[in-house]
Amino acid sequence: MNLAKSVSVAQPLSSWQDGPSRRAIIDAVDRLTRRASAQFVAPTERVAVFDNDGTLWPEQPAYVQAIFLLDRIKQLAPAHPDWHDREPYVSALAGNLHAVAAGGERALAELAMATHAGMTTDEFETIVKDWMASGRHPHFDRPYVDVVYRPMLELMDWLRASGFKVYIVSGGGVEFIRPWAQSVYGVVPEQVIGSTIELRYELQDAKPVLRRLPQVDAIDDKEGKPVSIQKFIGRRPTMAFGNSDGDLAMLQWTMAGPGARFAALVHHTDGEREWAYDRDSHFGRLDRALDEAKARNWTLIDMKSDWKRVYAFEH
Amino acid sequence: MNLAKSVSVAQPLSSWQDGPSRRAIIDAVDRLTRRASAQFVAPTERVAVFDNDGTLWPEQPAYVQAIFLLDRIKQLAPAHPDWHDREPYVSALAGNLHAVAAGGERALAELAMATHAGMTTDEFETIVKDWMASGRHPHFDRPYVDVVYRPMLELMDWLRASGFKVYIVSGGGVEFIRPWAQSVYGVVPEQVIGSTIELRYELQDAKPVLRRLPQVDAIDDKEGKPVSIQKFIGRRPTMAFGNSDGDLAMLQWTMAGPGARFAALVHHTDGEREWAYDRDSHFGRLDRALDEAKARNWTLIDMKSDWKRVYAFEH
Repeated sequence: MNLAKSVSVAQPLSSWQDGPSRRAIIDAVDRLTRRASAQFVAPTERVAVFDNDGTLWPEQPAYVQAIFLLDRIKQLAPAHPDWHDREPYVSALAGNLHAVAAGGERALAELAMATHAGMTTDEFETIVKDWMASGRHPHFDRPYVDVVYRPMLELMDWLRASGFKVYIVSGGGVEFIRPWAQSVYGVVPEQVIGSTIELRYELQDAKPVLRRLPQVDAIDDKEGKPVSIQKFIGRRPTMAFGNSDGDLAMLQWTMAGPGARFAALVHHTDGEREWAYDRDSHFGRLDRALDEAKARNWTLIDMKSDWKRVYAFEH
Repeated sequence: MNLAKSVSVAQPLSSWQDGPSRRAIIDAVDRLTRRASAQFVAPTERVAVFDNDGTLWPEQPAYVQAIFLLDRIKQLAPAHPDWHDREPYVSALAGNLHAVAAGGERALAELAMATHAGMTTDEFETIVKDWMASGRHPHFDRPYVDVVYRPMLELMDWLRASGFKVYIVSGGGVEFIRPWAQSVYGVVPEQVIGSTIELRYELQDAKPVLRRLPQVDAIDDKEGKPVSIQKFIGRRPTMAFGNSDGDLAMLQWTMAGPGARFAALVHHTDGEREWAYDRDSHFGRLDRALDEAKARNWTLIDMKSDWKRVYAFEH
């Protein structure tokens, strides 16, 4: 399946209502890319960054990578008899993410390393691909790759057609996203930025491999996002799209650059087709960034009123 | 000046002698990019990585960034009276790189942090640009941006014209290379990978900045090169070019992938137009990689016999 390729750019943003968000985006792209415009940005300078969880696909009822983590714990448990009477594994095996979260960052980190490290990068890629091919979203009972926001796919496609390099800048693990980002989002691996663990180059049966080590390298969230953008891209984005306080620094950094820029937040307002949450949510809290968006006139994308349809599977 | 743009791709590799290296490269590009070829690689998969020091420009009589470092120490010394009777500053102020090197990695790291950290990323970019615009290569008495290998510029241009994404993967600091890589090499900032120091997002007079901290983040040399390639690009290169043992792991990692690949080493054999050195050199030692290149039939680019001219300023 290649949703990205199936989206037409002849009619940009066709899943969007002809409302203030669509008009603001179309106006911004026109100003930034029309040669006669005072705010014209040269094609090589056009960089657009997108958060992933809550911006390109749902982060409810839990981050998809958290569901992956729980599934991996279950898969690996038979080889780890000690997990059956030891936290945070007992909670994880019971599928109780809230109990796991109660154990704090340390419990989460232990589970993350138990499930995401030890293997080679090639092996991990296969694990992720297999899981994405077989797993189904718990709410929609569809493959995860189908449960992505159709309006955002259209937006990424249209930005690419307008000369932008489109990057994902996610708090999720970069090697959890890369294996399917190209077919689902049209984003090539080198344009996916995310959290990383340490890698070690070593020989396995005389063949070089990269071993995933149980040590965090960089967390690509909050203030880590502008840091990653500088490290990986080396220039400031022209457009930035997020949905939570974790994206605030990325949007601030983008908008503080010289010349014209554009920032928008996806606001989860649709309790029927998706979920409605902001300031009080455990996942993807939108509080300080909501205030700042209002104060600075960043575009607030209202899922309920701005999107004609949310998913590609809606007809 | 934009050398990269001035290089013609109609006659690929025109500064190369019609010898074994040129023929091996042309044959490889043909095999990898001709649609009917059994070794055809799809355009989005075509990644070529180049080391910088000794591969794209000279690393003699010293790494250019080391000369930059010494110049910076001199510039900053008036504000640091304690430097005038304290090592490694005394040796650095005397321009004595060998004495500095005798102080080991710790001395070098101290000088590196004293000259490369503390400022914002924007400030450092200006410092590098100013230095590159005013500094002159000590041997050739020309701007550094002129003292680059014309045959390698032609090669990068031709690979781009053949659908390759061309990356620099350097042991040098990424933010030392990015400010001029686009105009000199035709390589955009997001395709420059190098060593990094830690960055911190902070507000300076209410404006977001990224502060360069005196802590090493990653050294992009030896086994660090495949690690960086995986972290930044997320896929294995199709072609890899280096010149020293520091590039060996990058070439091994490239060649160990499935399907057809190509690896080459620039061998510094030209004591007249450039420098002749390999196994015993302090900078850019080529020893283990030379043996492995011979054992595995990687292409050895012989600067003396393979290149008609070395620099663009030769007519």
